[in-house]
Amino acid sequence: MEQKPAILMYDLAAADGALRFSPFCWRTRFAIAHKQLALETIPWRFTDKEAIAKFGSERVPVIIDQGRAVHDSWRIAEYLEAAYPDRPSLFGGSVGRGLARFINKWADFTLHPLILRWKIDAIFAILHEKDRSYFRASREARFGKTLEQLAEEAPDAAKLFEQALVPLRRTLGEQQFLCGSEPYYADYILCGTFQWIEAVSPAGFSNTDDPLGRWYADVLHHYNNRLDQSA
Amino acid sequence: MEQKPAILMYDLAAADGALRFSPFCWRTRFAIAHKQLALETIPWRFTDKEAIAKFGSERVPVIIDQGRAVHDSWRIAEYLEAAYPDRPSLFGGSVGRGLARFINKWADFTLHPLILRWKIDAIFAILHEKDRSYFRASREARFGKTLEQLAEEAPDAAKLFEQALVPLRRTLGEQQFLCGSEPYYADYILCGTFQWIEAVSPAGFSNTDDPLGRWYADVLHHYNNRLDQSA
Repeated sequence: MEQKPAILMYDLAAADGALRFSPFCWRTRFAIAHKQLALETIPWRFTDKEAIAKFGSERVPVIIDQGRAVHDSWRIAEYLEAAYPDRPSLFGGSVGRGLARFINKWADFTLHPLILRWKIDAIFAILHEKDRSYFRASREARFGKTLEQLAEEAPDAAKLFEQALVPLRRTLGEQQFLCGSEPYYADYILCGTFQWIEAVSPAGFSNTDDPLGRWYADVLHHYNNRLDQSA
Repeated sequence: MEQKPAILMYDLAAADGALRFSPFCWRTRFAIAHKQLALETIPWRFTDKEAIAKFGSERVPVIIDQGRAVHDSWRIAEYLEAAYPDRPSLFGGSVGRGLARFINKWADFTLHPLILRWKIDAIFAILHEKDRSYFRASREARFGKTLEQLAEEAPDAAKLFEQALVPLRRTLGEQQFLCGSEPYYADYILCGTFQWIEAVSPAGFSNTDDPLGRWYADVLHHYNNRLDQSA
């Protein structure tokens, strides 16, 4: 396969610059590997707004591919699919793409608010010092509650999160990947969600006795194989 | 297109035999129309176990197609896709099928338990007299609560149902159908859920100012067009 120059990605980093915990950046990282393209990341923190302002975004991921900047993980996935039609498809056709959008919304609007409430202490703890007051102010405004109030809801949020996962677990008890016999972008969306959880506070999703843990390991295994092919 | 004999379906009916309210039977009804096959239904009640025992099932839908009986709405969809490959595809490929299974589980395990709690009074009210004690006993065993206790949770369940719909509404604000630009089986799964609600107690999902109501009308419109073509 023709070698392309690496795609650059601004990637949310913790205080430990090696720890990358954004579920949205993970989506893009998996998508780039799926397309067998090389990736270089630039660690970025929530307050580094200036670094990406010129790309028209306040948030990551932002990628720069051969001089073109694209932001927003969903738009990046669509961009990659259109720009690299000869590489493995990310969506597996128009129905796969339509349904992947639902999975994207399910992650963003059902799972993520529960994870934020469940893991708020752990997320706050790994942030770079300079990000803490920004994170506190923005999340307190979003939820209308202090971080301490959110933390009190953690046990309740953990239970609701487990409940919300039932359809996913049931599906993965009957087929290898969310998208069937091979992973596609919808698998990466949800795998990104679990990468976020495991990065901030390992929660046992790597237990492969559970269909969900088995799937999680399979997606990561597939990703690592693709990385080897992109190298 | 070659004319085939009608497929027979045992279809859950209310006291009013014309009222068909099973979300699972609606899935199959939509799927048969999508394949442009003709359908004849046999009204069936929860307690008519004997009528379908010979097909190895205690529940509907059960279809009989050219002498072959198939039960369980998901298995019927897979059967139709395999038996009629020259008719319009129900899943739109293997990724569409993988993700449709998730939508199936999401309807069954996230939406339906909330709807049962939300609409329990209305569901009970439309049942045939002979089904009432069966329905009461089976649902009370499933939830570990009396129907009256479930009914008290209705306002809470209605709120949780609205919350659960957020990802669907957001998706349908950005594309015409759940599966993209055309409806496929995953659309029918969820449309069956709304047919159930609207059959037992109209809840305003036909408001087309709402992306969800707009989609609901579009799926039904598409279904009616297919019916005309199957006739």
